[in-house]
Amino acid sequence: MSRSWIASLSAIILFPLSASAGDLRQDAAAVFQPIDPAAVAKQVKNNEITPAKVELGHKLFFDPRLSKSQLISCATCHNLSTGGVDAGPTSVGHAWQKGPRRAPSVLNSVFNGAQFWDGRAEDLKAQAKGPVQAGVEMANTPAAVEATLKSIPGYVGEFQKAFPGDVAPVSFDNMAKAIEAFESTLVTPNSRFDKFLKGDATALNDQEKKGLRLFMDKGCAGCHSGANVGGSGYFPFGVSEKPDEEIRPAADKGRSAVTKSSADDYAFRVAPLRNVALRAPYFHSGKVWTLEEAVTVMAKTQLGETLPAEDTAAIVAFLNTLTGDQPKVDYPVLPARTKDTPHPQY
Amino acid sequence: MSRSWIASLSAIILFPLSASAGDLRQDAAAVFQPIDPAAVAKQVKNNEITPAKVELGHKLFFDPRLSKSQLISCATCHNLSTGGVDAGPTSVGHAWQKGPRRAPSVLNSVFNGAQFWDGRAEDLKAQAKGPVQAGVEMANTPAAVEATLKSIPGYVGEFQKAFPGDVAPVSFDNMAKAIEAFESTLVTPNSRFDKFLKGDATALNDQEKKGLRLFMDKGCAGCHSGANVGGSGYFPFGVSEKPDEEIRPAADKGRSAVTKSSADDYAFRVAPLRNVALRAPYFHSGKVWTLEEAVTVMAKTQLGETLPAEDTAAIVAFLNTLTGDQPKVDYPVLPARTKDTPHPQY
Repeated sequence: MSRSWIASLSAIILFPLSASAGDLRQDAAAVFQPIDPAAVAKQVKNNEITPAKVELGHKLFFDPRLSKSQLISCATCHNLSTGGVDAGPTSVGHAWQKGPRRAPSVLNSVFNGAQFWDGRAEDLKAQAKGPVQAGVEMANTPAAVEATLKSIPGYVGEFQKAFPGDVAPVSFDNMAKAIEAFESTLVTPNSRFDKFLKGDATALNDQEKKGLRLFMDKGCAGCHSGANVGGSGYFPFGVSEKPDEEIRPAADKGRSAVTKSSADDYAFRVAPLRNVALRAPYFHSGKVWTLEEAVTVMAKTQLGETLPAEDTAAIVAFLNTLTGDQPKVDYPVLPARTKDTPHPQY
Repeated sequence: MSRSWIASLSAIILFPLSASAGDLRQDAAAVFQPIDPAAVAKQVKNNEITPAKVELGHKLFFDPRLSKSQLISCATCHNLSTGGVDAGPTSVGHAWQKGPRRAPSVLNSVFNGAQFWDGRAEDLKAQAKGPVQAGVEMANTPAAVEATLKSIPGYVGEFQKAFPGDVAPVSFDNMAKAIEAFESTLVTPNSRFDKFLKGDATALNDQEKKGLRLFMDKGCAGCHSGANVGGSGYFPFGVSEKPDEEIRPAADKGRSAVTKSSADDYAFRVAPLRNVALRAPYFHSGKVWTLEEAVTVMAKTQLGETLPAEDTAAIVAFLNTLTGDQPKVDYPVLPARTKDTPHPQY
């Protein structure tokens, strides 16, 4: 077992996050933060967010010509129409290959401590390079992406504007930076939970407040905390009891593939729970289709508890308050291909 | 040979559309019409276009949950970012199956005489039902689509608003009507050619005007006419000379599969040329990647001519003036699935 999560779990057990008798809003505000669009800029490292970069990233995010088949864009799996994810259980990529894990939502991902279920990318610009090259996803190469972008004058001009100091602005790295800039705008403020956190006591009803209290007192919030109600830290899936094989397939050992330490077997980045009601199915395997079942599984495998039905219902009611304003995004008009643009391969 | 196109071709040969000495704008205005958004309503039959229907259709057009895999939406192949089509040559559907023909553009499709390359759907509401059910495209069934839509309360409410008189508003037929309503808004006015048609003599430069004159005098406009510069009527591909097998594969006999008449072998609906510069590759086979080659092929196979390079360049320059304002479309936020929504199958 890795020391970090033992320490964290001990903290949860030894110092419950709040006493039931305390002020719910105050207790919650000590554990969670509202989604704050103004906080985005300081989340992004080594990549100044400029309007030119966001606009370029907007186009690139939706451009299927970044994939080998020219059919699959970032938006295919991170669908902004449906909570920033696809329909699941896991994603389908080049040549209809099935990916191993559920797509994580791009919404609010800028507030995650690291990217991917196993945290193998430190930030969104590192993440953006992964699926473009993954054989089971977009199956492309940096050289082919650069050839495509350089063949399209509209893109060349936009890269020059977005990266004005660069000698060679059209690059795979700058593609990733522009996508990070756009993705950092995809945040969902103004959920009812956020209104409650900011002081509107009527934003949650009694059942939802009970759910929030249970979420903190039972220990869920020991891992699912912060602005994203999760998204940072790594914990094993199956602390108290091993999940069903279907939900936690034996072959996918999670974080340990990154750290090369068996102590991290079956550890995953804590799932961020913002907008969770919009994006079933749940878990990295995408095999659980309702929040009721997901809460039941978590209580059993992580806390060793079988919750009364009304407690599960209350927690689910609380989770439903985490749905924020979905970003309003134009469907971009992309610059047209030219005779020099590589042809799709499928 | 079918009598209708013999008659049409004779008309082209016997009565050239204009004499070179005539007024170019007047001559063009006798053959073409500008794209007029106000003319849409009277194009659509048996389906009143209302804001509620357009808004519902907007969501349905982008909803991948209409497909069996819940991965493929209308927008996948009719990509509004890239001229209303995908990257080609032909489309890829369920289980990565390859469709037999290039996707036609959805832009301005409301002005076509019929839908599909072979005209087998009389209008957009008939068309919309095809790909949803086609095994190589979205591979779904009307019953499964209705089950999905009925499981999502957000959709149920929108269907009720869009079809207020209906006893059972959530239906496959109404899905198609809503999609037709949305698609009828996808028009591209204000091309430079339209500005010229409306009287702005400076909207085209000399080369483009020469191209327009050639386009009329050589006979291209005998088929490619009207608001969509094509899109109505059927003519054999290969009037003067059989196209290369790759461009016109022997197995796809086009319109005759609809009419069951060998007189229509290799006849296709005349390709509408609006925004043609945005959407290579060309022809129903999608095997020609430049307008230069497409014009060369058409001159040879349809008119029996080998054009001088400067004439081809002039016609291509004219075709580039057919690009209009691309529709501004929001990426819709779709109503969330529920526990009763059928799961994706892939």
